Amino acid sequence: MCAARPGAGACDAGAQRRVSPVTGRGCPRAATLCFWQTPERAPCPPRELETYLHAHIPLSRAMQVSVVQAAPDEVVLSAPLAPNINHRDTVFGGSASAVAILAAWSLLHTRLSAEGLASRLVIQRNTMSYEQPIVGRFTATAAAPDAEAWHQFVRMFRRKGKARITVVSVLHFAGAVAGRLEGEFVALGMDQPA
Amino acid sequence: MCAARPGAGACDAGAQRRVSPVTGRGCPRAATLCFWQTPERAPCPPRELETYLHAHIPLSRAMQVSVVQAAPDEVVLSAPLAPNINHRDTVFGGSASAVAILAAWSLLHTRLSAEGLASRLVIQRNTMSYEQPIVGRFTATAAAPDAEAWHQFVRMFRRKGKARITVVSVLHFAGAVAGRLEGEFVALGMDQPA
Repeated sequence: MCAARPGAGACDAGAQRRVSPVTGRGCPRAATLCFWQTPERAPCPPRELETYLHAHIPLSRAMQVSVVQAAPDEVVLSAPLAPNINHRDTVFGGSASAVAILAAWSLLHTRLSAEGLASRLVIQRNTMSYEQPIVGRFTATAAAPDAEAWHQFVRMFRRKGKARITVVSVLHFAGAVAGRLEGEFVALGMDQPA
Repeated sequence: MCAARPGAGACDAGAQRRVSPVTGRGCPRAATLCFWQTPERAPCPPRELETYLHAHIPLSRAMQVSVVQAAPDEVVLSAPLAPNINHRDTVFGGSASAVAILAAWSLLHTRLSAEGLASRLVIQRNTMSYEQPIVGRFTATAAAPDAEAWHQFVRMFRRKGKARITVVSVLHFAGAVAGRLEGEFVALGMDQPA
């Protein structure tokens, strides 16, 4: 269930007092996007994630990032060339890595929300390889970590309020892989120090 | 001597037919910023690099990047929090790494120009560590690689028209190191295939 839906009932302890950053409804502590508290775990509409990113991370708006898909198993973002161009008429490396980071962060956030976990996600480190020049609209696809890594991450987060995981985000242009980011994130419980 | 200065005399073979991307003056092949052809190798005014970045890499303008220093031994860029903020009211990791990449690229470009070498610089890979949250204006400082690595890079570039080098860019906020990028770049001669 998405935060924008009234009556999410998200103010009990288990829900960790979440609030919708888009609507302001919910409970006043952690900023989450979608709650997915229904048994079917319906995916959040891409538009909600896009609105959130544009509202809270202005660079995503400057890069004209759009959300193609926002599901717990895969987040796909897209961006056009024009606002991300460089002096060689290809996509600036800084834009490529920023969109890849956004996709990885969005995947983790979406996936944690799907587990009913409110968290603060902090990127600690990333590596980025630029494999092909990009000369048009491109996508960044962040896929779910493998099941064992994810379960270990969630177990640790529930136990310690802090856990670390690596998320991969792959850039595509014109049907081919154009770049690859590995981002190491730390998820902190809402009561953990930054 | 900077490209904007008339009479730069940059059209001989040694100058590799360079043109000022800002003024359009010069010779029609490679886009360089400053020529530094005077014996004293005067540094390029920061304003010229800033104008170039804003004109050719629109994300640099969106991030409100300003050039504090642009010398062959050190390039310092600065950016404010507001256009680079994230949902936690700190600098978005994608902005931090993009500004760090810009500083590293600018240092290499500035330094190659100081050697009288026109090139296309391509980032191949980077690692970025995020060491402290940044909650205000920050800087990215790219310093010259060590002398031996630089000489080897220039030798290889002159011989093969292609050479690889790593440049480090350090982020500072409030007097402390807040992040660190290592970028691996390839410099290609103007006649080399991309």
